[in-house]
Amino acid sequence: MAKTASNLQIDSVRLWDTIHETAKFGATPKGGVRRLTLGPEDKQVRDWFRKACEAAGLEVRVDALGTMFGLRKGRDMSKLPVGLGSHLDTQPTGGKYDGVLGTLAALEVVRTLNDAGIETDAPICIVNWTNEEGSRFAPATMASAAYAGEYTTENILARTDLAGVSVGQALDDIGYRGNDAVGAQKLGAFVELHIEQGPLLEAESKVIGVVDRGQGITWYDGKIVGFESHAGTTPMPLRRDAMGALAEVALSVERIAKAHGPNAVGTLGEAVIANPSRNVIPGEIAFTMDVRSPDADTLEAIDRDLRAACAEIAARRRVDISVDAIWRKPPTIFNDKLVDAVETAAKSLGYSNRRITSGAGHDACNLATVVPAAMIFVPCKDGISHNELEDATQADCGAGANVLLHTVLSLAGIVG
Amino acid sequence: MAKTASNLQIDSVRLWDTIHETAKFGATPKGGVRRLTLGPEDKQVRDWFRKACEAAGLEVRVDALGTMFGLRKGRDMSKLPVGLGSHLDTQPTGGKYDGVLGTLAALEVVRTLNDAGIETDAPICIVNWTNEEGSRFAPATMASAAYAGEYTTENILARTDLAGVSVGQALDDIGYRGNDAVGAQKLGAFVELHIEQGPLLEAESKVIGVVDRGQGITWYDGKIVGFESHAGTTPMPLRRDAMGALAEVALSVERIAKAHGPNAVGTLGEAVIANPSRNVIPGEIAFTMDVRSPDADTLEAIDRDLRAACAEIAARRRVDISVDAIWRKPPTIFNDKLVDAVETAAKSLGYSNRRITSGAGHDACNLATVVPAAMIFVPCKDGISHNELEDATQADCGAGANVLLHTVLSLAGIVG
Repeated sequence: MAKTASNLQIDSVRLWDTIHETAKFGATPKGGVRRLTLGPEDKQVRDWFRKACEAAGLEVRVDALGTMFGLRKGRDMSKLPVGLGSHLDTQPTGGKYDGVLGTLAALEVVRTLNDAGIETDAPICIVNWTNEEGSRFAPATMASAAYAGEYTTENILARTDLAGVSVGQALDDIGYRGNDAVGAQKLGAFVELHIEQGPLLEAESKVIGVVDRGQGITWYDGKIVGFESHAGTTPMPLRRDAMGALAEVALSVERIAKAHGPNAVGTLGEAVIANPSRNVIPGEIAFTMDVRSPDADTLEAIDRDLRAACAEIAARRRVDISVDAIWRKPPTIFNDKLVDAVETAAKSLGYSNRRITSGAGHDACNLATVVPAAMIFVPCKDGISHNELEDATQADCGAGANVLLHTVLSLAGIVG
Repeated sequence: MAKTASNLQIDSVRLWDTIHETAKFGATPKGGVRRLTLGPEDKQVRDWFRKACEAAGLEVRVDALGTMFGLRKGRDMSKLPVGLGSHLDTQPTGGKYDGVLGTLAALEVVRTLNDAGIETDAPICIVNWTNEEGSRFAPATMASAAYAGEYTTENILARTDLAGVSVGQALDDIGYRGNDAVGAQKLGAFVELHIEQGPLLEAESKVIGVVDRGQGITWYDGKIVGFESHAGTTPMPLRRDAMGALAEVALSVERIAKAHGPNAVGTLGEAVIANPSRNVIPGEIAFTMDVRSPDADTLEAIDRDLRAACAEIAARRRVDISVDAIWRKPPTIFNDKLVDAVETAAKSLGYSNRRITSGAGHDACNLATVVPAAMIFVPCKDGISHNELEDATQADCGAGANVLLHTVLSLAGIVG
């Protein structure tokens, strides 16, 4: 059995077909996917995933935040299951691989073990985490964060989207508010396969990224209050133009992130003018910012510089600028033993690989705070993600799934 | 009769009450008015205005663009009527006086003449122009522009709002697509009373602004196309961030307008990010700009500087920036004879006054291209307009209406 297992390979054609079968739920004209968490398309893919798990002999359970767990029994049920998976929700104009690859590769691992008749010593649990993207409800990775104890379930259930719909209501609307308490499904470890969403692996022609760190993230909600007045009759010196202030804030976050480079990034991704009209000077603008760095001290320094810049802009332009850090995710250090297991699997399978830092936040980063966790990256075309043009090859997706398979086998153990 | 007429005064209490009676149509919690052109609140105020005109013995006619004309017969009907009026539509968060004062003061002039039993030689025609604001449909002052021959009626009827509703459809929806051809109601002159919407009269403690010029206006529709990508994994140097480009465009229009000061102004009033998400670098942003100057050459120079700035920003940031001038209004020179008539009326009534340039576009600016026209300004608090805080005093509104009354009498002639 051991020899068979060491030669075991997932079915990359089946994995590829599965990815493209689910891509129809929320498919966009440009070839991307729009599957906002807990919306009608998310319900479609969840129903599909539940059926697929049951067809693979898994016991499917759903927790109070809609996260789906599919358990494959091991010989020794006293051992905690090895978790593997990712998420099936997408950005408003997202791609076919972000999250989907890791979730369906986990399903492919189970199908491969079933076909080979392999029993593991510890059980295996595949997971579809609710709302990884954070596009509809903040924060991102909210379900895995609650699983890790960062938020209470009640706190997350009360979060609302722009339409005022709460997470609890959205769960009920699609019938995915489960009976299990969040955290009830214990895991002994967690491994997540994901596309890199960056340019490094492709640039260096590496197939596997052995992820050893994750960037820390700070999300800001900001608001500028100037004074709304007539665009034709208000002399330039008398203006308190919220748009002029927003422009300087946007250029400040860009400048400050570069100053703390090369690994820090800063983005002003949302800005909404209150009562916009082409002949009215904007009086109020709400905006959001996203700042990341793999170093905690750098995140602190950027926060200080950003607040100082906003204070200077506000005073000079006679407007109010409020900046509220609504979410702080510390940098992640993944578990050495698991990172080594991923690297060993990649090497034993003969895949070119490199250690890499995750620029994006992932559910595995939350899991890493409570159980040994690791991640596996595969390249995506031009490093493009959160975009309908997001692309990856069948070969790379298959390679990642094989590394996931053998990492999980090394952790769960094989019944010889 | 002549003596009576020279002492004639409008009823400032009645005018004030009328202004506040109509302010209930679209009243906002903050004390302003939201009465977008051809919407349900506009229908309410139009129905009210029609009844008031008929009660004052006027023959009300509506043209194909919904502009309302109330004719008061003169002794010599072979003479063209003296037109007076303004508009009853408002900004999305507008005030109680912008446009309303001039329209209701015209009604007050008729009521005053009726009460005094004064017949004029030439007829008098009070007007409520459709869509002066341009907030729902571009361009602003579209009905008076069509009246002046700047656009065909068909061209204006086909304009659509953000919801895709055409002007023609909106007119039918509220029952104000009239039978008269645009321009059928000929006028011999046009006088418009309006709040200044700027700070000068108040700053110099003047009651009446004798408007001799109007600023030229250029409206731009702009679009920035960069590349949408992941906010966490896209290194700063590789970004094509549409928000960074928008920020530089906003600061450029501000800088360029100041450089061509003191009378030029430039505003970026609208900006909409496509598919906004806090962890996605904006890939596409649509925006609008409003540029004004009383000097035609200055408008041209600003246009050149603005396009040069956008070209430089686009090249440096590797994004596309398109800037389309969708509307160009040349500076207005009001009719000397009428401007003198306004000044004479102000002086004879003993009101402090000064010559002034209109910073805003007005229906009178369009009329000035086809008939002798003039405007009368009164102060508004802190120069604030296009804002719910817009305010003016009963005394100043009454003074403006008295100047309007005597200007109209001097043009229409009194039957002695």
